[in-house]
Amino acid sequence: MDRILEKSLLYDFYGELLTEHQKSVYEAVVLEDLSLSEVAQTLGISRQGVHDTVRRCDRILMQYETKLHLVERFLAVKELVREIDSCAAALGETSDSRYLQSIKEISSRILDTM
Amino acid sequence: MDRILEKSLLYDFYGELLTEHQKSVYEAVVLEDLSLSEVAQTLGISRQGVHDTVRRCDRILMQYETKLHLVERFLAVKELVREIDSCAAALGETSDSRYLQSIKEISSRILDTM
Repeated sequence: MDRILEKSLLYDFYGELLTEHQKSVYEAVVLEDLSLSEVAQTLGISRQGVHDTVRRCDRILMQYETKLHLVERFLAVKELVREIDSCAAALGETSDSRYLQSIKEISSRILDTM
Repeated sequence: MDRILEKSLLYDFYGELLTEHQKSVYEAVVLEDLSLSEVAQTLGISRQGVHDTVRRCDRILMQYETKLHLVERFLAVKELVREIDSCAAALGETSDSRYLQSIKEISSRILDTM
């Protein structure tokens, strides 16, 4: 997965477990894509401090995912819903009942794993 | 929601953030439904200790959910997938194309929020 997207997802899921300071730094650098120097100046800390905080946050967020796998679970469900979406589009175009069967199977599969 | 189901869900999502000891106690009391005395005897701790540990785990798990809302997000998606499942069944029975439209709308809605 794209590195920035992965970081954004991890932050979206577990970001609230960071401190306010960590969140400010991480959002500025990773989500708003500001430079370390810009963020350092804005927050009145050293460039190295910004760098270290981002690294620490990356590690913390990844540790939560390693334990909980909730981003992974969400992405698996999302992929299956995408398949349902494709089957629904194909069903609308072809009226081939196999697409309906697929939709039923995929939705059951999602419900079984949730 | 049913209290036991809610506890099980919270444990399923955030249980790995508890210590091994907390997990042993919580699983025995909440998931396996053993009595406090039984668990106390098995683990060689006091009945009060078992009780306190379960209370502490409930609090910890709830604090994670209050911050992250991931169980809530999952349940919302699950509810929408259930609707897709119902629409697919109804579509199979009636061939009414409005059910197909609903499936498309619901799957788009899920993908937009994920």
